[in-house]
Amino acid sequence: MNKIITISREYGAGGHSIGKQVAEKLGIPFYDRDIVRETVKASGFDPELVEEEQEDVSRTNSFFKTICSASSIYYNDTQEAIHDVQRAVILHFAQEGPCVILGRCADDILRQAGAECINVFIHADETHRAVRVSELTGCTNATELQKMIAKKDGSRHTYYNHYTGKKWGDSHNYHMTLDSGALGYDTCVKLIVEAAQAED
Amino acid sequence: MNKIITISREYGAGGHSIGKQVAEKLGIPFYDRDIVRETVKASGFDPELVEEEQEDVSRTNSFFKTICSASSIYYNDTQEAIHDVQRAVILHFAQEGPCVILGRCADDILRQAGAECINVFIHADETHRAVRVSELTGCTNATELQKMIAKKDGSRHTYYNHYTGKKWGDSHNYHMTLDSGALGYDTCVKLIVEAAQAED
Repeated sequence: MNKIITISREYGAGGHSIGKQVAEKLGIPFYDRDIVRETVKASGFDPELVEEEQEDVSRTNSFFKTICSASSIYYNDTQEAIHDVQRAVILHFAQEGPCVILGRCADDILRQAGAECINVFIHADETHRAVRVSELTGCTNATELQKMIAKKDGSRHTYYNHYTGKKWGDSHNYHMTLDSGALGYDTCVKLIVEAAQAED
Repeated sequence: MNKIITISREYGAGGHSIGKQVAEKLGIPFYDRDIVRETVKASGFDPELVEEEQEDVSRTNSFFKTICSASSIYYNDTQEAIHDVQRAVILHFAQEGPCVILGRCADDILRQAGAECINVFIHADETHRAVRVSELTGCTNATELQKMIAKKDGSRHTYYNHYTGKKWGDSHNYHMTLDSGALGYDTCVKLIVEAAQAED
């Protein structure tokens, strides 16, 4: 077994928790925001710009467009440059050995590079996700929770489509997609571990 | 464990073989074309019409339209009626106890009925599928294989969209989607069995 596991996930579907548990069970590193920090260190970009980049391509662009129309071109270039460094960091992690990488289009980056990996997408219905986001944020207003979920998913969708040209959540982009609401987090962890440990 | 497993699948992705093995491992019935035969028996429809119905909604409609423009309306009604009986048969099988049901929009029919089930979609890249279809049909012409795969997938896509209003292969319609080309049939069988046996 020498596989890298990438996890894409809808907001509130438990992808972070599932990915972390998978990494623990397999005894391999788990990379989430570490990637961003590593990007900052390696690239020398303004840390604030890198933090701003995140997944919200559309929002940050419009923000910059509002401030100064000329700077949106500059920001687009900067954003692409940050993404390039992020890609290099992901490839570096993958070369180090088996690991779990969350988000950041790692599935597409590693596929393009021909790396052997298992690309997983975690989703769940709105109710399961609202309950989870409520637990994470303390918000108990259903309308607010729906808005938060829609906004975060929209950002991830835009980010993924922008950098891969593919549809986020389309089963064909992943080796395995799992409904964490119906199956439960523990079952999702077991299934991913089982897939990672399977002989080819 | 008292779950029904539905399997939707791309042509040549091994869904039939995987579904059959899952049923054997769990010691539960496997329903494929049996559903059609049961429909014939239960409905009293012309067996040829029922066989014709299959998944090729677009082709049969255009065929009937070519023969006689008025009959396409009749055929649409007949087709819907056949689908209704098929739905009743699927619900009957599901009520009998745990089983594996292949295709026929069983995932959507059982979801609508509130049945507890695991809906699986099996897909694979074109090369894996071409090799499989070659093995199944004896055809060794790559262009012919591509045409056969595209035609069969188109039919299943149209059939699924027509009766469910949803996109065939969209991860959100399934509890689990698996790339049988990358993961291998045996791993797919193991993962589905594991999901079926998991405690909620």
